Amino acid sequence: MNKKVVLAYSGGLDTSVAIPWLKEQGYDVIAVCLDVGEGKDLDFIKKKAIQVGAVESYMIDARDEFANEYALLSLQAHTWYENKYPLVSALSRPLISKKLVEIAHQTGSHAVAHGCTGKGNDQVRFEVSINALDPSLEVIAPVRAWGWSREEEIDYAKKNNIPIPVNLDSPFSIDQNLWGRANECGILEDPWATPPEDAYDITVALENTPDTADIIEITFNHGVPTELNGVAHSLTDLILEVNKIAGKHGVGRIDHVENRLVGIKSREVYEVPGAHTLLLAHKELEDITLVKELAHFKPVIEKKLTELIYEGLWFSPLKVALEAFIKETQVYVNGVVRVKLFKGHAIVEGRKSPNSLYDEKLATYSTNDEFNHASAVGFIELWGLPTKVHAMVNKGEKKVSV
Amino acid sequence: MNKKVVLAYSGGLDTSVAIPWLKEQGYDVIAVCLDVGEGKDLDFIKKKAIQVGAVESYMIDARDEFANEYALLSLQAHTWYENKYPLVSALSRPLISKKLVEIAHQTGSHAVAHGCTGKGNDQVRFEVSINALDPSLEVIAPVRAWGWSREEEIDYAKKNNIPIPVNLDSPFSIDQNLWGRANECGILEDPWATPPEDAYDITVALENTPDTADIIEITFNHGVPTELNGVAHSLTDLILEVNKIAGKHGVGRIDHVENRLVGIKSREVYEVPGAHTLLLAHKELEDITLVKELAHFKPVIEKKLTELIYEGLWFSPLKVALEAFIKETQVYVNGVVRVKLFKGHAIVEGRKSPNSLYDEKLATYSTNDEFNHASAVGFIELWGLPTKVHAMVNKGEKKVSV
Amino acid sequence: MNKKVVLAYSGGLDTSVAIPWLKEQGYDVIAVCLDVGEGKDLDFIKKKAIQVGAVESYMIDARDEFANEYALLSLQAHTWYENKYPLVSALSRPLISKKLVEIAHQTGSHAVAHGCTGKGNDQVRFEVSINALDPSLEVIAPVRAWGWSREEEIDYAKKNNIPIPVNLDSPFSIDQNLWGRANECGILEDPWATPPEDAYDITVALENTPDTADIIEITFNHGVPTELNGVAHSLTDLILEVNKIAGKHGVGRIDHVENRLVGIKSREVYEVPGAHTLLLAHKELEDITLVKELAHFKPVIEKKLTELIYEGLWFSPLKVALEAFIKETQVYVNGVVRVKLFKGHAIVEGRKSPNSLYDEKLATYSTNDEFNHASAVGFIELWGLPTKVHAMVNKGEKKVSV
Amino acid sequence: MNKKVVLAYSGGLDTSVAIPWLKEQGYDVIAVCLDVGEGKDLDFIKKKAIQVGAVESYMIDARDEFANEYALLSLQAHTWYENKYPLVSALSRPLISKKLVEIAHQTGSHAVAHGCTGKGNDQVRFEVSINALDPSLEVIAPVRAWGWSREEEIDYAKKNNIPIPVNLDSPFSIDQNLWGRANECGILEDPWATPPEDAYDITVALENTPDTADIIEITFNHGVPTELNGVAHSLTDLILEVNKIAGKHGVGRIDHVENRLVGIKSREVYEVPGAHTLLLAHKELEDITLVKELAHFKPVIEKKLTELIYEGLWFSPLKVALEAFIKETQVYVNGVVRVKLFKGHAIVEGRKSPNSLYDEKLATYSTNDEFNHASAVGFIELWGLPTKVHAMVNKGEKKVSV
Repeated sequence: MNKKVVLAYSGGLDTSVAIPWLKEQGYDVIAVCLDVGEGKDLDFIKKKAIQVGAVESYMIDARDEFANEYALLSLQAHTWYENKYPLVSALSRPLISKKLVEIAHQTGSHAVAHGCTGKGNDQVRFEVSINALDPSLEVIAPVRAWGWSREEEIDYAKKNNIPIPVNLDSPFSIDQNLWGRANECGILEDPWATPPEDAYDITVALENTPDTADIIEITFNHGVPTELNGVAHSLTDLILEVNKIAGKHGVGRIDHVENRLVGIKSREVYEVPGAHTLLLAHKELEDITLVKELAHFKPVIEKKLTELIYEGLWFSPLKVALEAFIKETQVYVNGVVRVKLFKGHAIVEGRKSPNSLYDEKLATYSTNDEFNHASAVGFIELWGLPTKVHAMVNKGEKKVSV
Repeated sequence: MNKKVVLAYSGGLDTSVAIPWLKEQGYDVIAVCLDVGEGKDLDFIKKKAIQVGAVESYMIDARDEFANEYALLSLQAHTWYENKYPLVSALSRPLISKKLVEIAHQTGSHAVAHGCTGKGNDQVRFEVSINALDPSLEVIAPVRAWGWSREEEIDYAKKNNIPIPVNLDSPFSIDQNLWGRANECGILEDPWATPPEDAYDITVALENTPDTADIIEITFNHGVPTELNGVAHSLTDLILEVNKIAGKHGVGRIDHVENRLVGIKSREVYEVPGAHTLLLAHKELEDITLVKELAHFKPVIEKKLTELIYEGLWFSPLKVALEAFIKETQVYVNGVVRVKLFKGHAIVEGRKSPNSLYDEKLATYSTNDEFNHASAVGFIELWGLPTKVHAMVNKGEKKVSV
Repeated sequence: MNKKVVLAYSGGLDTSVAIPWLKEQGYDVIAVCLDVGEGKDLDFIKKKAIQVGAVESYMIDARDEFANEYALLSLQAHTWYENKYPLVSALSRPLISKKLVEIAHQTGSHAVAHGCTGKGNDQVRFEVSINALDPSLEVIAPVRAWGWSREEEIDYAKKNNIPIPVNLDSPFSIDQNLWGRANECGILEDPWATPPEDAYDITVALENTPDTADIIEITFNHGVPTELNGVAHSLTDLILEVNKIAGKHGVGRIDHVENRLVGIKSREVYEVPGAHTLLLAHKELEDITLVKELAHFKPVIEKKLTELIYEGLWFSPLKVALEAFIKETQVYVNGVVRVKLFKGHAIVEGRKSPNSLYDEKLATYSTNDEFNHASAVGFIELWGLPTKVHAMVNKGEKKVSV
Repeated sequence: MNKKVVLAYSGGLDTSVAIPWLKEQGYDVIAVCLDVGEGKDLDFIKKKAIQVGAVESYMIDARDEFANEYALLSLQAHTWYENKYPLVSALSRPLISKKLVEIAHQTGSHAVAHGCTGKGNDQVRFEVSINALDPSLEVIAPVRAWGWSREEEIDYAKKNNIPIPVNLDSPFSIDQNLWGRANECGILEDPWATPPEDAYDITVALENTPDTADIIEITFNHGVPTELNGVAHSLTDLILEVNKIAGKHGVGRIDHVENRLVGIKSREVYEVPGAHTLLLAHKELEDITLVKELAHFKPVIEKKLTELIYEGLWFSPLKVALEAFIKETQVYVNGVVRVKLFKGHAIVEGRKSPNSLYDEKLATYSTNDEFNHASAVGFIELWGLPTKVHAMVNKGEKKVSV
């Protein structure tokens, strides 16, 4: 009896070719295709796996789990990698790994395989996640292992009756889920070149966006977006819906030269219409509900969590501790945010909350002012005291740049 | 002979009323008005000070000093306060304080006065800065000290022949300089309300922006923007120029509920067309020229420096040390950034640099690939080793959320 | 009927004088004395309050609550303020505040009073804590309010039949609890002077410590020390016991010039024999049980939590979130630590844990080595890649200091 | 003509065996032995290299360069790795790399070799440093490459007439320089076992230390220790001198289970008598000369710099920027620190400085008090305002743990 391997199967050329290749290594291949909201024809993919040689083929709808446990943490922790994009692939890789390990356990498999090459971040994310979930499983990376050129791969595919995709010449390499769409390669590899319009798919070009804004209201409950325009939605549906409206207005295009974990810079184009909109709305609600000290420290946690997820360490004890911090902060994040979607912008025009710490009677410059102006005198005296003593002691020293 | 006080004079009602009030306290008032790029009629203000009772009146063009030492540090350190606005008033206060102290020394004055109330940030910035520069100077805050209602102040003004401004009913309180324009008060005090269009002045409403983009190229030299579209400019002129073009396209409107140093949240509207554009361009150039470790740590410095400037500690030894860090990083920030200004966006479409660390031969997925894919295997093994050992040891423990 | 005030009563001169003074302000005084492990005669203090004029007097044994909720967090979060001392007074102030507020609610009081002066940290801690727990309570600080000299206070005491303490000339100001003893003032105010031996009380001078070590074993369960030398103890008893043994060996004397929240530097002498010993033991257990990424980030949380507690913000949402992080990390902190107490040292000589991540088969240089040495080649290549690319691009540039 | 390789030669078995091995790979071997203060017989080592087959042999006295550029930065930046030991090997590796590269350039060599195995940190430090200094040089790691067992290596040595060291059975692996001595392996591999006394060399066991203290005074000038007991010393000599006195009193033994860069935990024993003493003295001088904000942020820089050096990134632009920060802070670090060396302790008993910010008139509780106690009222009101507003708004919410 053959050993079994569970393969993360996308339906594309690489993972299709991996099936006969893994068979040659002596494995029975169990293909698993996950739906994390990318909108593919998963039924077709499920069947294709069998056609190209898998002994079993699974299709798993993981959209709700992805939304509730992965995208939601990204939302609440404002995971803008390098202050630029809110993670896309880095969020789905641990979930896919988890499902692969579950299927491996169900099917008594001893190995798991993924279709990543040797220079991306995703190989790291898959392998570290799988090792964290079950260190006894072998991990195989066929594409990295065979090291073929495109031509050699196509030759092998033809020999093994793998259908060659019609868009084989597409210069792009795409990954997509509920939370966004990532695109790298081809013309994008020149950072001086403007990304071509066909690099984008789920956002309309600014030039073609409507001349009338959409104004939406998003309701948050303990940091979870629960209603759109007053109508309750599951998180999955709400994200999909906001993706659609915000995408129509061209919101959330990002063009980024990023630092990969494997030590190189790469240029990627992202589209995150829903994530962009929800992240801005969530942050603005925090702006009125989180107390200053918390608002100023939370970004330290956010930065660490973002880098840790990017770097493939989702299933690490540090992530669990960082998440505990984030979840505590969301208790107060209740309220409604009004967002104007227009010409590529998600403009927060209003926010209100039962937990709002914005106190008009303290903030106002009108006659209703309840702030004690005299307090400032003592405050400033002590606040500036260290600097003042420093100035008195070191007077004449060269250092302060006056 | 009377004691002398140097007053930061804006020409507005508060500081005009302060002149007779300070005279009543037994001071000769020396008015100082600074030009930090707000585009006021400074000659008129200089004369007005004398008319309302000052014994001397100075007008100082501090635009270049402001651009080169204050705005530039904001640019290079990406000083987005609360990740939202790049500091406006917080940057000019220390410079104004410095000039007040210089004039105090020149004129043999024993006191310095500013027109701030008791609940804003600026009183802290003025007083801490002045104390840091000369701890022996007395600091007077007439508006905070007299504690009058608007009506009482107007009565006093009339009695002292101070002209009452025609726009006294304006609900807004404005501060402006080269780097931007800040606006608080009135209708803005309700964070659920959309800011009215007349809250804005130097940016065009999105609805009225041109349907044709402007594309500009900004050249940086060691982190300093030196050319616009290939033409050399002083930093002052370059900022003013970009303000104009970007303002025309509605770039840089910000609506923010922020945490003040004095413990309250306040809502402010900012317009920073030039700062927004230059900051984005500068960051993108850093994205291709700064090595990963540096790119990932610089934000820690930036956050601290931003908060320190916001909190009035410009003239502190910590600022000097943080600035030393920032300046070291700018050595490599050379190159050109191409920005499309359109419908409120400053979209960086291309960046190039002689110091670019983006290496197409490493990043490419084409056949020119020079990246050693095999290295990844060893890298992943060691990168994931702590997590793997943890998983082996603590297997079955509840913690990892699977 | 008089208004009621709840007074934090220590039995000393200041708070005794405060009782008649508060009566003169029209208050009935309810005295509250807390036992947080300082070993005072609390019964005597309780009676004294009535003798000097309080209408009611409470004595609360808060030792277990202090140990389990305050000292324990200090232990698990390694709260070394300025990397020097593990907080003493800062830990008891919030607990005392909480008890004062509880008694205020029970007795229908409208005000709470504490005996702090106007230049210490404790006034801030009391007032911010009380405001956080019940913002409607008035807070009175009699000592700060009356502003008397020592002589004036004694005159007032005599007039009001307050007994004058015999050690009135003691140059020291002491605060003590389970977690340590703090001492400021007098000769200590010269930072060049060696602290006199009588500044210390609960630790033996190095010169007089035994010539034979005590070796103890401390067992931790999820980060809580539960056994001493294999015998189960409540946390309170365990701390008291370790205080005794470690104190005998002169462990935990600290002489520190610290930065107070109110802007001045002050010199304090601390004795923390138990805290020092337990903190070192706990850290060493974490060294073998926490995964690298967590071990390297936890100090960031620790530093913030320490400063926040020091600065009086115990009852803030940020503390709750930071604590959530810390608690998550303690799951793995199980095991035994062997400590040699000798000549002022608490030397950890051994540590073992069922959750130990120290893997002899990976760490060894013997023939049992299971570490894959070849992995390092790929790891180093990618780890050093950004620096290498930087070197290739910027070769000849002045920056790298070679 | 053969290619040339520059070998970091220690005189030990591994690097001696590497010489004939490198010759077999077709290289002429140029041996380089550095003196970084470990006190070896370098002349003997220099000759031995030739005896075992090197074509050239260099001996470089790098002690002053090591002291002034490497140890000094460690001192000023308080580089306690994992809060436990002040870096030892991590500091010398970049300097050795630099010298190897210089000799490679002088001799026209194309390769550099080091004697590290595949599981330590030092291989990373050497290779990343060499790549940073000259990315065109090939780096060879013979020990890692040959992968022999101890027996195989001895066989090869005998065949090649390499003398076998008499202490071959020593269970320890030692590295030493001016700044300290590191020891790993053997019995130390059990973290529950007490390190045996012969694991230590440059510090006396506590039990054998003198019963009389030595009290020394160290003078710092801009953060550089320049005098010992009032006598000027070069930094090298001063460190050596303090090593001797402090070592006699048993100061600076450290037993640490640390996280290596390559993903494993290892247990090491360090002796750092001089470093421990100087670091404590330097920190105490900073405690009185650095302004609060700076004192509280400098540790963030220190932690990053420590980790970066530990991780082999000395020659990176981030290190240059971090160092610029540190150097700015040292301007004020002038003064004298009095240290009592006794029973394993370096107790700072006094510190004084012309730049001292400790102000007795502000700190005192005597009648000379110049602190304005009334200021505290306003300070506390604004300091606690966010927490108070939070309490008012969220009253009754479950979060604050009362």
